[in-house]
Amino acid sequence: MAIYDDERYMKEALKQAKKAYTLGEAPIGCVVIRNSDGKIVGRGYNRRNTDHTTLSHAEMTAIKKASKAQGDWRLEGYTIYVTLEPCPMCAGAIVQSRMDRCVYGAASPKSGCAGSIMDLFSVNEFNHQVETKSGVLSEECSEILSDFFKNLRFKLKSLKEEAGKESEVEDETI
Amino acid sequence: MAIYDDERYMKEALKQAKKAYTLGEAPIGCVVIRNSDGKIVGRGYNRRNTDHTTLSHAEMTAIKKASKAQGDWRLEGYTIYVTLEPCPMCAGAIVQSRMDRCVYGAASPKSGCAGSIMDLFSVNEFNHQVETKSGVLSEECSEILSDFFKNLRFKLKSLKEEAGKESEVEDETI
Repeated sequence: MAIYDDERYMKEALKQAKKAYTLGEAPIGCVVIRNSDGKIVGRGYNRRNTDHTTLSHAEMTAIKKASKAQGDWRLEGYTIYVTLEPCPMCAGAIVQSRMDRCVYGAASPKSGCAGSIMDLFSVNEFNHQVETKSGVLSEECSEILSDFFKNLRFKLKSLKEEAGKESEVEDETI
Repeated sequence: MAIYDDERYMKEALKQAKKAYTLGEAPIGCVVIRNSDGKIVGRGYNRRNTDHTTLSHAEMTAIKKASKAQGDWRLEGYTIYVTLEPCPMCAGAIVQSRMDRCVYGAASPKSGCAGSIMDLFSVNEFNHQVETKSGVLSEECSEILSDFFKNLRFKLKSLKEEAGKESEVEDETI
């Protein structure tokens, strides 16, 4: 298997994360590459609230597209790059689709299943294990998330204040 | 939460499994119900080979449909019935969509993540846990799978024998 520039592909995953940000979704992005020639065969970004389904995590969309391109659910010989450590569903999907490698940026202490809470990629009882690399462009991957949630909290605070003012006005008119 | 007849819903999941069987897919079926009124809001059956994606497990399709019906990725107040113990991806999707309960039929020693290999439904570090009930109509759920794989092995053997005969014929004509 050829070894490609992990940072280059993580930058592509970050481009996807920015799309989620623009949409008002937690900015998580992902790309899947074919190891034999380094071609990106699947891209995805978080659309969970927009699509009203937990199945719209970045990894799931990228895996779906990669399988479509490959014409097979088996993705042996593929690597997935994701800005945030995968949750149990996405880590499970990576195992089930038999990918070779998972490279991620920021760790996820709340739901990460590639080392933080548990490591679904190295369970001997499963019929497939996944090589893992963590911390690639982790600062950029963390920063875009921190920035998003900081803005979200600010917006919520502003909305609450607005709502407070409105209720004050209402109180005066009664 | 109302408690419904688990066997009744498992029979509905088995109906879905039969659809997979007819399609030549490993017969696994699933339904999702709304606990408040017992209405089935999502159905699914395994179509992994047909759709060329690991995302076409029975549970994933049923969850997707339930979320569409609910208009939300959050499925608090819902129960999922599946004929085979969920794999890591599907168990993860059940946790991520915050369902109340998972009822399954047959255990899966090779990939089961609701008690067999591990239990993703009772990980304290996750922000959600899922109540589990196993062994509902387990014989029927196991039998349909055993029957499918027995038939598949028989077909493969017959095809190999056919191929052998053909190559003999070819050998004779050379």
